[in-house]
Amino acid sequence: MDTRTSPQRLRLDRLREALQRRGIDALLVPSSDPHLSEYLPERWQGREWLSGFTGSMGTLVVTRDGGALFADMRYWEQAERELAGTGLVLVKIPTAAATHHIDWIVQQLGSRGTLAVDGQVLGLAAAQQLRSAMDKAGITLRTDIDLLDDIWPDRPALPTAPVFEHRAPHAPLPRSAKLAQVREAMARAGASHHFISTVDDIAWLFNLRGSDVDYNPVFLAHALLDMSGCTLYLAPGKVGSDLGATLQADGVRVADYTEAPRALAALPVGSRLLVDPKRVTFGLREHVPTGVAVIEAINPSTLAKSRKTAEEAAFVREAMAQDGAAMCEFYAWFEQAQGTERITELTIDERLTAARARRPGFVGLSFSTIAGFNANGAMPHYRATADSHAVIEGDGLLLIDSGGQYLGGTTDITRVWPIGTVSDAQKRDFTLVLKGTMALSRARFPRGTLSPMLDALARAPLWAEGVEFGHGTGHGVGYFLNVHEGPQSISKALPDANMAMEPGMITSIEPGVYRPGQWGVRIENLVLNVPADTPEGDRFAEFLEFETLTLCPIDTRCIDRSLMRQDEIDWLNRYHATVRERLAPLVSGDALAWLEMRTQPL
Amino acid sequence: MDTRTSPQRLRLDRLREALQRRGIDALLVPSSDPHLSEYLPERWQGREWLSGFTGSMGTLVVTRDGGALFADMRYWEQAERELAGTGLVLVKIPTAAATHHIDWIVQQLGSRGTLAVDGQVLGLAAAQQLRSAMDKAGITLRTDIDLLDDIWPDRPALPTAPVFEHRAPHAPLPRSAKLAQVREAMARAGASHHFISTVDDIAWLFNLRGSDVDYNPVFLAHALLDMSGCTLYLAPGKVGSDLGATLQADGVRVADYTEAPRALAALPVGSRLLVDPKRVTFGLREHVPTGVAVIEAINPSTLAKSRKTAEEAAFVREAMAQDGAAMCEFYAWFEQAQGTERITELTIDERLTAARARRPGFVGLSFSTIAGFNANGAMPHYRATADSHAVIEGDGLLLIDSGGQYLGGTTDITRVWPIGTVSDAQKRDFTLVLKGTMALSRARFPRGTLSPMLDALARAPLWAEGVEFGHGTGHGVGYFLNVHEGPQSISKALPDANMAMEPGMITSIEPGVYRPGQWGVRIENLVLNVPADTPEGDRFAEFLEFETLTLCPIDTRCIDRSLMRQDEIDWLNRYHATVRERLAPLVSGDALAWLEMRTQPL
Repeated sequence: MDTRTSPQRLRLDRLREALQRRGIDALLVPSSDPHLSEYLPERWQGREWLSGFTGSMGTLVVTRDGGALFADMRYWEQAERELAGTGLVLVKIPTAAATHHIDWIVQQLGSRGTLAVDGQVLGLAAAQQLRSAMDKAGITLRTDIDLLDDIWPDRPALPTAPVFEHRAPHAPLPRSAKLAQVREAMARAGASHHFISTVDDIAWLFNLRGSDVDYNPVFLAHALLDMSGCTLYLAPGKVGSDLGATLQADGVRVADYTEAPRALAALPVGSRLLVDPKRVTFGLREHVPTGVAVIEAINPSTLAKSRKTAEEAAFVREAMAQDGAAMCEFYAWFEQAQGTERITELTIDERLTAARARRPGFVGLSFSTIAGFNANGAMPHYRATADSHAVIEGDGLLLIDSGGQYLGGTTDITRVWPIGTVSDAQKRDFTLVLKGTMALSRARFPRGTLSPMLDALARAPLWAEGVEFGHGTGHGVGYFLNVHEGPQSISKALPDANMAMEPGMITSIEPGVYRPGQWGVRIENLVLNVPADTPEGDRFAEFLEFETLTLCPIDTRCIDRSLMRQDEIDWLNRYHATVRERLAPLVSGDALAWLEMRTQPL
Repeated sequence: MDTRTSPQRLRLDRLREALQRRGIDALLVPSSDPHLSEYLPERWQGREWLSGFTGSMGTLVVTRDGGALFADMRYWEQAERELAGTGLVLVKIPTAAATHHIDWIVQQLGSRGTLAVDGQVLGLAAAQQLRSAMDKAGITLRTDIDLLDDIWPDRPALPTAPVFEHRAPHAPLPRSAKLAQVREAMARAGASHHFISTVDDIAWLFNLRGSDVDYNPVFLAHALLDMSGCTLYLAPGKVGSDLGATLQADGVRVADYTEAPRALAALPVGSRLLVDPKRVTFGLREHVPTGVAVIEAINPSTLAKSRKTAEEAAFVREAMAQDGAAMCEFYAWFEQAQGTERITELTIDERLTAARARRPGFVGLSFSTIAGFNANGAMPHYRATADSHAVIEGDGLLLIDSGGQYLGGTTDITRVWPIGTVSDAQKRDFTLVLKGTMALSRARFPRGTLSPMLDALARAPLWAEGVEFGHGTGHGVGYFLNVHEGPQSISKALPDANMAMEPGMITSIEPGVYRPGQWGVRIENLVLNVPADTPEGDRFAEFLEFETLTLCPIDTRCIDRSLMRQDEIDWLNRYHATVRERLAPLVSGDALAWLEMRTQPL
């Protein structure tokens, strides 16, 4: 056992003194920020600062004499390692959304005491659930203090990275047109005002981008619109004077980030405020004065952003071709280097990132590359580190899930490659997953179909063999924005009316098979919702189908041909012909030779 | 125009006098009863009595000087005919669940006035919605009076048909065991009492059956359980003294139907009452005194009833074979008689019902037979009448959807038969529908999958060609009970956790194609959820698959073979081999010859 005193131990002690001083019995630190984003700025990584646990999801509760971290399966091993010496207990929960921490708090505090949580980072739904559980248990809930401020002397400030414009031609719709579109939706909903905290909605709406967090080109901001003007709440210095003037010309005023709550509090009596209850925090919602009618509905920008325009789709096709060309260059190198150079999972990340970086329009990665060999590929959220990574040698399967941010789109692709000799069992898994990817990729469906209802189409070929995978089949993808965006989701999520499939949406299709300790297979393409030209036309309904956007060979050496139907072979051959035709003009030499070899018909 | 004064006109006038007298501005008459059943006893068919509209769904609103009936597409033609001369307006609504009547009431009454509706027949959710809309509009809502009682002199009383026991062996689980099962669920939910209004739940729980409505072998009753005893609220005379004594021995007291509200009102302070908010009326719920904690959850009996036991499943297989044998006898006659006798859609109903009636265990039909030739088959809820029905002659498709109640199960089957020459377009539709039926019938899926998530599997082959149908793919089916029962539904219904697929559930699979004015195709089998023996065993999840229960040939003369894959032909041939093997022992002569001819492999 480590007898040194960890920095976390000292921080926890300081927190417990603050609890004592303030008369509070426990502090809840969720993994969230005032924008309910996927990636948190350092300022709101208090859970990691206090506990040392670096996973992307996890809930911390600290009491006066103890504490626990709640994490799902993905993080159990890592959490046990990182929590060592802190005195914190790891509570293993089944899914990231599980609420075991609520029961734990009630059990620890009994039917009395006070729980604190920073209301500024608590979603409305989560707050309501917590409030009702605490009320029932007789526990006082305080959401009006941020205890981290008391005890975190060098707490990071708001990110200061500059905000930049996403310009035409890559941003084909001017912000004035987007603002008009959102105001139309406000009018339909009977709203006079609309408050937005969602950072990618704000980036989309104002044609602005930033770099406040990793991978997602967003910046921290809130926005308040009325029918004629609007205000963007940003940390000081993020918008230069030229950009400020440009915004002003479009009726967009820039104000200090910390002014947002006061602006809500100052809404005139009789206003009708549109807010998205899933996309605004409890703390901000609390500032809305009585006398303002609150209309709860999904952010109009969340819906509009998901429906890429024809011009955007054209740029995405270009970005996909550049991304595919980068993949060709990487794989051409990789196949030649294998056996002659020492290649690790980290090398793969470096080389692939370098290949992407040479492509026009490339801005950065859209998420941290997952390169997992054999057993590492069986962990859907695996990340190789300097301390722990595999060398690519011997036999097996190499899974690479990666993506880039381009000025004209966001990519996300998973491929699996054979290393040495591939077993029959591995080929079978690969082929079943491919059948799942193809089955959904080929689907047609009435416009408006709720996206979760399509999930079974990708799973059916796997289910037929008794195989299931524990993640969603697909997520929405942004346009030079977040690689995970809503509202659609092809998954077991309970559908709601906002998840209707509409033309222009981009979604991933990525079924998988994971055999812990052995290998993993996932084959992922991005697809675009386009009108389908069916034999019946619009007689029965308006139909959509998927245009596969991702352009990169699927390695046919891993296929068990006996499991493929002729119509599936035909689809794959057509896909490879398209890949070859579209990528050939963008590569040369070894990469072109590799492309031609790996797109031969089956 | 009809100048005679219709009885409806007189009744509406009498109602309007009552409205005036009582100071009420409008009466809402929904299609529902105190048990929220699908089939209404005559006593609660006030909408029909007042308006003359005989459709099974429709909402009537009568004001002091007007009125409107709200009906969906299925009934527009019929409603226009039946409302003629009443002065009532037909409002065409998109679906049965649409709430246009609420807007209409607000528009008619303005921001004042009083609306009456009988709270005794209003579901809780519907009541909450109505209450909130009326509050918003400033309209007073009265739910405490039943105006029909004022004006309907010969209003039918409660049905008096006797209640009878569903006995072993067909009811394999004694009522004491079922009561214990429900009490266990009450204990888990922390309930001391449980009130049930759902008539098929009550029939299942007490192993009793009745004949108070058409087709569903149920009787009107409420039940109130505590942890040791229970009371059944029934109209007088429905339970004989022998049955009464038998029930008494199992701790079941019989009381008068009208006592139920008083029993709720008399619940002791501190009780914890379990009620299903979707399955109890507003009127009854209102009787629960403050001081009683209400626990809202699905009726435990609704879940338990849906999971047929192994013994019940064995009886269902027998009933399916008898039902299939009846189909063989009918079709053998039908194919010989065609061209020599005049056969109408009504003849089909008579002959098919007679064939079923000759089968052991047959009790009655499970719903009104749908026999629709050509254009009539394009109406999913078509019913031939003495005034309006087709003669089966010439060329086309004949759709027959029918089913029976047997002591050991409930059947529901749809087949389509070729008459004369069948066109290529008809064969194509038939084949696409068959592919849909087969695709879902062959599916495997993890136990607990929410049933609506399977809907797309049946639709995908139709969607691929741009074809959609406007009804659900499948409904739950009772055991010698309602042909439509929950909680599962393979449809576009928004799924909830209660719709999880569990072993023992019986569901229909019935995709279709409907070409208005031309023809309709629907192919329907019932299937049982059984454990699947997958190559991976339980490694990834516990898997279920469907055992096809329905036994009757699917006419291969309607198949376009070019659209069938080999694996589909194999499935169909295996199905027909099973049908032949299972039905051959039960038929002879012409019926056996017909069975052998129509089960030849494709």
